[in-house]
Amino acid sequence: MTSLPEPPTSASGSPRLPRTLATDLASYADRPGQPLRLSGWVHRRRRLSGLTFLILRDRSGIAQVVVKDAAAIAQVEDLPEETTVDVVGVASVNAQAPGGVEVVEPTIVALGAPADTPPIELWRPTITAGLPTMLDHAQVTWRHPRQQASWQLAAASLHGFREALDHHGFTEVHSPKLVESATESGANVFTVDYFGRPAYLAQSPQFYKQVLVGVFERVYEVGPVFRAEPHDTVRHLAEYVSLDVELAFIDDHRDVIAVLRDVVAGMVAGVRSRATAAVELLGVDVPVVPGEFPIVHFREALEIAGAPADEPDLAPAHERAIGAWAKETHGSDFVVVEGYPTAHRAFYTHPEPAEPQWSRSFDLIFRGIELVSGAQRLHRHEDYVQALRQRGYPVEPYASYVDAFKHGIPPHGGFAIGLERWTGRLLEVENIRQVTLFPRDLHRIAP
Amino acid sequence: MTSLPEPPTSASGSPRLPRTLATDLASYADRPGQPLRLSGWVHRRRRLSGLTFLILRDRSGIAQVVVKDAAAIAQVEDLPEETTVDVVGVASVNAQAPGGVEVVEPTIVALGAPADTPPIELWRPTITAGLPTMLDHAQVTWRHPRQQASWQLAAASLHGFREALDHHGFTEVHSPKLVESATESGANVFTVDYFGRPAYLAQSPQFYKQVLVGVFERVYEVGPVFRAEPHDTVRHLAEYVSLDVELAFIDDHRDVIAVLRDVVAGMVAGVRSRATAAVELLGVDVPVVPGEFPIVHFREALEIAGAPADEPDLAPAHERAIGAWAKETHGSDFVVVEGYPTAHRAFYTHPEPAEPQWSRSFDLIFRGIELVSGAQRLHRHEDYVQALRQRGYPVEPYASYVDAFKHGIPPHGGFAIGLERWTGRLLEVENIRQVTLFPRDLHRIAP
Repeated sequence: MTSLPEPPTSASGSPRLPRTLATDLASYADRPGQPLRLSGWVHRRRRLSGLTFLILRDRSGIAQVVVKDAAAIAQVEDLPEETTVDVVGVASVNAQAPGGVEVVEPTIVALGAPADTPPIELWRPTITAGLPTMLDHAQVTWRHPRQQASWQLAAASLHGFREALDHHGFTEVHSPKLVESATESGANVFTVDYFGRPAYLAQSPQFYKQVLVGVFERVYEVGPVFRAEPHDTVRHLAEYVSLDVELAFIDDHRDVIAVLRDVVAGMVAGVRSRATAAVELLGVDVPVVPGEFPIVHFREALEIAGAPADEPDLAPAHERAIGAWAKETHGSDFVVVEGYPTAHRAFYTHPEPAEPQWSRSFDLIFRGIELVSGAQRLHRHEDYVQALRQRGYPVEPYASYVDAFKHGIPPHGGFAIGLERWTGRLLEVENIRQVTLFPRDLHRIAP
Repeated sequence: MTSLPEPPTSASGSPRLPRTLATDLASYADRPGQPLRLSGWVHRRRRLSGLTFLILRDRSGIAQVVVKDAAAIAQVEDLPEETTVDVVGVASVNAQAPGGVEVVEPTIVALGAPADTPPIELWRPTITAGLPTMLDHAQVTWRHPRQQASWQLAAASLHGFREALDHHGFTEVHSPKLVESATESGANVFTVDYFGRPAYLAQSPQFYKQVLVGVFERVYEVGPVFRAEPHDTVRHLAEYVSLDVELAFIDDHRDVIAVLRDVVAGMVAGVRSRATAAVELLGVDVPVVPGEFPIVHFREALEIAGAPADEPDLAPAHERAIGAWAKETHGSDFVVVEGYPTAHRAFYTHPEPAEPQWSRSFDLIFRGIELVSGAQRLHRHEDYVQALRQRGYPVEPYASYVDAFKHGIPPHGGFAIGLERWTGRLLEVENIRQVTLFPRDLHRIAP
């Protein structure tokens, strides 16, 4: 019965050296001869005559261990790549080593059995395996420094997202993913056996964030959303991480766009400040977020794209044209298109009162691809009933959703950002699966 | 085509006053007569002779609006509780008003139709409705200031959780909730129709956090977990928010407990610094987190609880006794019990090598109730195979899980905290549903 953990000891019983991370090796440059301990994976072994370099990888980066002792060289022969090891050695300055310091006179202890040959050659500068192999072995693939770095962009973006919203007085919420009915549409929804009766996986937290602005005024949620997407495309996933935002007491969707601008600026600031090494390794062209996004109306967007005036939506080619126009005219990687035709947006979208054929909706186009959808929503019960009727939808299946608006929901709006789509655009990957930790689609449910 | 949003204007076209939050009214104490604008909900109306008080609620708190004009009094008659309003008026010092300032000479504009009578009397100091009514109308119930405050504790805890882990070099991850097989156990798992074949809802991110320590060494995730819990208890939910942590290159579970201590301290610090008003309103007895948690071995815990030495687990009464002992002996609301019998923990739990009947697992008991479960996990492939065999489990269904450990997973461990259980204990509620935004259980899938 003790309240104090024992100090860590080596097998010999003497106190163990604290661990040094690979990136912190550089701090030994002015104290060569200092003993230290590294822990990590055997990233690569390079055998020269009478000398083996053991390249060790940890979460911070790469360290070079110089093995000269014959017995130790033989030992390293039996420690294949990806085996985990503890290395106790001595710091030695070497301008050729990563960080200018290498570890010499090592004592190496394997922390597990010798690893199997990895299905992906992790020591190569880039992954040479094809996408199916990468995805089949995702748990190993993500160890590649470039893959790790691409997720560090995502994690840093999440931090920046929350920081921006916390600053604006938003409350984090977590809404249920098991729901009674599908709010977005009846299609593309996964059915769950819920204690013997059917339930569904939420396609978005739409209903919950709308009723929760009735509580907290400003809410955000980071969580999974589920789409039983029957098409096999490079842009769609059956499950992805959605960054949802909703705010009340707005005048119109322009107030939502202003918050979106600050959120995107926060995500970019997060990437710059918290994923510096990843940005450098991957050569990310981090965008500059303008003080205000350029905004163009849907009608004018069609003109810019050279599309017929009666097009109901923007095709990918149109989005690319508008992206190029924004870059040329405003020097901006971002452009907002507002005022999409009401009939082609979700029924809960607020029309522009003076011209109800146009809605108070918007998309944010980032480098020519839609990244965010948002809108002012309807907030009056009677407007919901009318919107459903106009679309010829029965009110009954939506009753519990619509009834919530009898209880004083303020004017509000919001938006959703797909995390994987964001990092995918940042890295300009061909397939969104490349930046998804464990993608789910029509054909894939593992690992 | 414009890049500048219009300044907000009133119906008359003149620039609109910026909004003042209820809690910021106090700042008008030294400038009475200043015009201002409030937005919020009609929380309560108090009719006196020739005078009506309109109590307005917004996300920050309560404001008092004094209505004297006969036409305005009549207007307020038609604005039932929970109707959303904009109020433009003049600041006036009144020591009796919340914050010492009230709003007089108001012009009131309803922002929606008059609200239906709320199913919960939100203006009462405490909720008088029973739990089923509260839960049936959760979207309205959460508006009650005490309910709002209880979620603010949760949101502040999440902030503190992440801050503590970011500080320790952890990476946030998001693992899939749609999985091929159940890792925890075959029971209590929800089945999903996944494009015509069965898939399951993840009972925990256990597998993913274990393989991701192979990538990032230290990971955390905040996300939903799903348990098809067939029992209707006050402690269990079919879906809850799990705060999952896993870290590698540990010596044993004591390293995990040290991180857990810092995480709990971070959550408490988050509550103190970011939910100050909620703590005060609810009279929360915020715990003091000791520099190190008292730790007691399972064998000794049984002795303390006066339980037979061959008990395989701690019953709730035992946990209460150990909680009381920790308070008395260590002055601590927290106590860790370590070394639970290996046979009664999950198969991936690391045994204590010298005494393999005891495991390197632990529970954190907070005020007499288990709050957290954690352990060092097995990290060698052959240990997994042996553990499954010893338990008489077939290896095949676990093959993809177990095979991951052929690729060099370092010694690691972790823990999970149930968010709702944490806030439930903080507030000492009788039923966990009281602190769950939209609870899911055997009988409830809505709202």
